[in-house]
Amino acid sequence: MGKAEIGLIGLGVMGSNLALNIAENGHKIAVFNRTTARVGTFFESAGALQPRIVPCTTLAELAEAIRPPRPIIIMVPAGKPVDEQIAMLRDVLSPGDIVIDGGNANFHDTVRRFSELGNSGLTFIGMGVSGGEEGARHGPSIMVGATPEAYARVEPILTAISAKFEGEPCVALLGPDGAGHFVKTIHNGIEYADMQMIAEIYGVMRDGLGMSPDEMAGVFAEWNKGRLNSYLIEIAATVLAAQDRQTGRPIVEVIIDRAGQKGTGKWSAIEAQTLGVSATAIEAAVSARILSSLKDERLAAEQAYGSGGLPKFEGRRDVVLRDLELALFAGKIAAYAQGFAVMAAASKEYHWNLPLPTIAKIWRAGCIIRSQFLGTLAEAFEAGGELANLLMAPAFIEMMKETHPSLRRIVARTAEAGLPMPALSSALSYFDLYRQGRGTSNLIQAQRDFFGAHGFERNDGKGAFHGPWTQSG
Amino acid sequence: MGKAEIGLIGLGVMGSNLALNIAENGHKIAVFNRTTARVGTFFESAGALQPRIVPCTTLAELAEAIRPPRPIIIMVPAGKPVDEQIAMLRDVLSPGDIVIDGGNANFHDTVRRFSELGNSGLTFIGMGVSGGEEGARHGPSIMVGATPEAYARVEPILTAISAKFEGEPCVALLGPDGAGHFVKTIHNGIEYADMQMIAEIYGVMRDGLGMSPDEMAGVFAEWNKGRLNSYLIEIAATVLAAQDRQTGRPIVEVIIDRAGQKGTGKWSAIEAQTLGVSATAIEAAVSARILSSLKDERLAAEQAYGSGGLPKFEGRRDVVLRDLELALFAGKIAAYAQGFAVMAAASKEYHWNLPLPTIAKIWRAGCIIRSQFLGTLAEAFEAGGELANLLMAPAFIEMMKETHPSLRRIVARTAEAGLPMPALSSALSYFDLYRQGRGTSNLIQAQRDFFGAHGFERNDGKGAFHGPWTQSG
Repeated sequence: MGKAEIGLIGLGVMGSNLALNIAENGHKIAVFNRTTARVGTFFESAGALQPRIVPCTTLAELAEAIRPPRPIIIMVPAGKPVDEQIAMLRDVLSPGDIVIDGGNANFHDTVRRFSELGNSGLTFIGMGVSGGEEGARHGPSIMVGATPEAYARVEPILTAISAKFEGEPCVALLGPDGAGHFVKTIHNGIEYADMQMIAEIYGVMRDGLGMSPDEMAGVFAEWNKGRLNSYLIEIAATVLAAQDRQTGRPIVEVIIDRAGQKGTGKWSAIEAQTLGVSATAIEAAVSARILSSLKDERLAAEQAYGSGGLPKFEGRRDVVLRDLELALFAGKIAAYAQGFAVMAAASKEYHWNLPLPTIAKIWRAGCIIRSQFLGTLAEAFEAGGELANLLMAPAFIEMMKETHPSLRRIVARTAEAGLPMPALSSALSYFDLYRQGRGTSNLIQAQRDFFGAHGFERNDGKGAFHGPWTQSG
Repeated sequence: MGKAEIGLIGLGVMGSNLALNIAENGHKIAVFNRTTARVGTFFESAGALQPRIVPCTTLAELAEAIRPPRPIIIMVPAGKPVDEQIAMLRDVLSPGDIVIDGGNANFHDTVRRFSELGNSGLTFIGMGVSGGEEGARHGPSIMVGATPEAYARVEPILTAISAKFEGEPCVALLGPDGAGHFVKTIHNGIEYADMQMIAEIYGVMRDGLGMSPDEMAGVFAEWNKGRLNSYLIEIAATVLAAQDRQTGRPIVEVIIDRAGQKGTGKWSAIEAQTLGVSATAIEAAVSARILSSLKDERLAAEQAYGSGGLPKFEGRRDVVLRDLELALFAGKIAAYAQGFAVMAAASKEYHWNLPLPTIAKIWRAGCIIRSQFLGTLAEAFEAGGELANLLMAPAFIEMMKETHPSLRRIVARTAEAGLPMPALSSALSYFDLYRQGRGTSNLIQAQRDFFGAHGFERNDGKGAFHGPWTQSG
């Protein structure tokens, strides 16, 4: 065999799995890791795939092993390590070589790196990879920001390793420079919202209906056969049914309710705010993780406020469960409407021309938020015409009409019973604000004009006007 | 009379009013405006205050007119104009002179300018001014970021012109460099939340109870005598009672429900996210303004979804109004808890040592969110001890216990009736998440470990663990 088709630096779990995936799909790959001992153990673990793996212990060796122009995937922690790795790579690369960041980069960094590398004759690709360890090994969803030329060089490999949805590869060139990492960031923001809404529904089952983890697992498994069919619902069932090996108790009951985060949810919220797009379901999900981390404060607050005095959450279990299923679906529609609105705004702002239907399509398999729902969503965006908001797509209007009454009932009854519903209630508020032709911010404008002479528009004439108050006259 | 004590550049409404305020309080002030014609008209309008005003038509003249070290307030639009103005000023200033940005600067810019000017021997002050036109003229609340030395030079003037609350001047040195502008940003974020919550309550009165603007004005005026006593409630009553001169109709009915924003609300949300602090009420308020601006989309959505099919909002008016009053108060507590938590986090992150009680005190008069409530809040922070969250202050625990049931009822009933309640419902969710000792993010952690091997903590042992799933093993 000749030279390797591609290189990869950083043999952590994600990097190793991606390398094995590439080798398994018939592409020879050269690998390097800063702690070089890892290169050996990785190579040993590769078993039958060894003939397609070239272990390298120096960067020069790595470069030498790859057919130019050399595509090299970097899989190191986001941030400074990426810049350090790029700096070291420069010495061994030649003009035309392609540095690919496959980590969860902040897209602003990707834009900067794209420009910096371009200045020295190298090419940069920002590549968002979703699917966790399992996806990396057997087929992730891959969101690429690159020039068409650079993409063409790696397209066969990425197509081969990507997840397939009914035969269609879940990889696409989404735009230049930061487009891929931006879309991956929003993917993760939506994932935060999806997971938070599931956790809220779980809370109602647990604390409102008094269900056991096993019973809940059964409900989620059942839901997974219907309109909520998705990876996150499937694994909700799986983890709820799992038992702790130490205690024999359901594993969810020994896990502390303190959620971690690695920044992409926060970035989603910041980018939405920066672009001036409403993304309250994502913001609420990030916020809920923040509050979850304040476990000691929460315990003290529970002491201070007690949990008594509130009406109990009541209702026939089967009726409530049906409402929960539909409420979750309605909330999901609103959250995805927000996420796609953020991408639409970014596409305009950064002149990316993001293909929204394609994004929905490459999320149908491989990634964490994969679901049946995304197929419907892709169809809605493909149906043609500029869609102002997902909430205005005919299929979604129908689905939302059917499900929002359930969302209302759940938000209302949990509000009274003191069961927190941050993401689902913000999804409802979003929908209600959006469908309200005549809102209430005329009062806000009146006040702003009163104290700051900001002026307002009238509904019976064009221009900026002031109110009849002498103060700001 | 000798030289001027201070200078001011930028004779827009805010700048002019600030200059007149300074002159009226006995301090001689030199003024300049880029469009120099404005200097003359301003001087003419100053009437009896002319002897304390030195109109200047060049920057050199301005510098010459002020006693060194020269404090010069810049009142120009935030952003690039400030940098341009500073660049022009450099030529005429001497080491030790003090450039004061009195606009709504982004605190990151203030930190940068502080450092840039420091490098060339000049001093910079970032000064947040709240109170609108009226406040600038007769007493604003002033939030200062400066060195103690620079502050000492301008303290007598700022003390003289500031609003007074029962004799106490509403001005303070809050910390170095960006501290003043940061606090002003959060002030504005809280103002967004306050205004949005009032607008939501107005919506219930208008669309749920069918009240006329005059009737609502009466209710707000009544509330202003009680625990909600505040400038924003007072002017809600005022603007609701005001009639349009052209049509004779209530002015709020001719104003379009499309709210403007100038960026500080967005900045608050971004800074909260950056610091990892939950500020959902502010985020919801910003989001509501964003959606308000999409008037055409909202009208189309109303067409698509119709407004029928939802239960009517019902109830005895006096009973509902009482709930609305208490719901608004409960929401206000949660929103302020968030705003102060953001400042506490910023104080730690940037080593500012922000005096939270002082901030509450200097907001009691002069600024847009001035209220009786802030007095109680200042007392809570002064009561001693590190307060984890405003929701844990004894006085606030009592007030929240009394009012949160009303907030629940209002959120529940508006959810069912389709009246949007984005800020108030997120305030409720915040409270319910915060007071829940055992949350639901154990499910989130289980899922994260399942798909990404992120690990989790156990409630029966220290360390990071993995679940009994083979996949991520």
